[in-house]
Amino acid sequence: MPVKNDMTADFLRSAYGGESMAHMRYLIWGDHAEKQGMPNIARLFRAIAFAEQVHAANHFKELGELPGGAAVTSGAVFGFGSVAENLQGAIDGEVHEIEQMYPVYLQTARFQQENGAERSFRYALEAEKIHAKMFKTAQDAAKTGKDMKLKEVYVCPVCGYTGDGETPDYCPVCGVKKDLFKRFSA
Amino acid sequence: MPVKNDMTADFLRSAYGGESMAHMRYLIWGDHAEKQGMPNIARLFRAIAFAEQVHAANHFKELGELPGGAAVTSGAVFGFGSVAENLQGAIDGEVHEIEQMYPVYLQTARFQQENGAERSFRYALEAEKIHAKMFKTAQDAAKTGKDMKLKEVYVCPVCGYTGDGETPDYCPVCGVKKDLFKRFSA
Ligand SMILES: [Fe+2]
Ligand SMILES: [Fe+2]
Ligand SMILES: [Fe+2]
Ligand SMILES: [Fe+2]
Ligand SMILES: [Fe+2]
Ligand SMILES: [Fe+2]
Repeated sequence: MPVKNDMTADFLRSAYGGESMAHMRYLIWGDHAEKQGMPNIARLFRAIAFAEQVHAANHFKELGELPGGAAVTSGAVFGFGSVAENLQGAIDGEVHEIEQMYPVYLQTARFQQENGAERSFRYALEAEKIHAKMFKTAQDAAKTGKDMKLKEVYVCPVCGYTGDGETPDYCPVCGVKKDLFKRFSA
Repeated sequence: MPVKNDMTADFLRSAYGGESMAHMRYLIWGDHAEKQGMPNIARLFRAIAFAEQVHAANHFKELGELPGGAAVTSGAVFGFGSVAENLQGAIDGEVHEIEQMYPVYLQTARFQQENGAERSFRYALEAEKIHAKMFKTAQDAAKTGKDMKLKEVYVCPVCGYTGDGETPDYCPVCGVKKDLFKRFSA
């Protein structure tokens, strides 16, 4: 069902812009971490870049009935420094989404009874909580000059849920079967 | 050398946002074209998505000395319709960049003597001209309900120059050797 309310539509566009820029900076920072001899941190960046792609695609498809050009304003983080510095940028972006952006967008979608947008924002919010923690673990290692320890990372292609190690049989956020998970192994 | 002028820095941020969103919508529209039984158009979308990644990364790295969060306003195109409709969105976005956005950004970078930004904007502008033409060829096929004919597509990882078929020995825009080109074959 198409989005009915302008405010929810604007928030979907902003969230699409924010997720697209997060996806892109994680690809850039992932390539940099690889060159700095930290392949596990590079793999984490790439796996989470894919999760942000899932979020961006969900928001975009919710807007499918509202085609055309728009000027989109979104939060973004810049900087191309050490691996630990880049990870701080990643953490800052995720924390903003967890504490400020997605709670407000989610509240608005509920208030305006926009069920599709509500689901899309909720899926993203749940994944960002995990992303912030995983980036913190990566940063603890990078600060000592070492790569992180990291098992296989899996990402749900429906909601962007992200984890490492043993996979649950079903995605704990959207319920999809684990066979669909995209896996990032060493 | 770091960016010295606020206006050029703002345009780099906007261009980063615009390229990140273009990259993302081409991935989304590429997956859709694949599902609609048009693997060549899907491959074109994915190759050009990679070229936009090169542009985004160039702009981002120019801003490397200016870390931190920012609210970024960028042009974007939305819509999730037929393959031919999505290609119209792609053409509209490229034409805006060719005729409006990059000429102004490039002019500003020259005026403010920002050599790094000037190069980054110029590389993008040259590639977008080709992208608009390739998407038009794809749309001509999609409008008749058929996949496009498409040879191997190659993309320069330094400047995003894009072509199909025989590769030149050196990138005509940035001069890098063809061995570095990223190739997208059927
Ligand atoms: Fe996200
Ligand atoms: Fe995230
Ligand atoms: Fe899920
Ligand atoms: Fe571009
Ligand atoms: Fe382009
Ligand atoms: Fe090039």
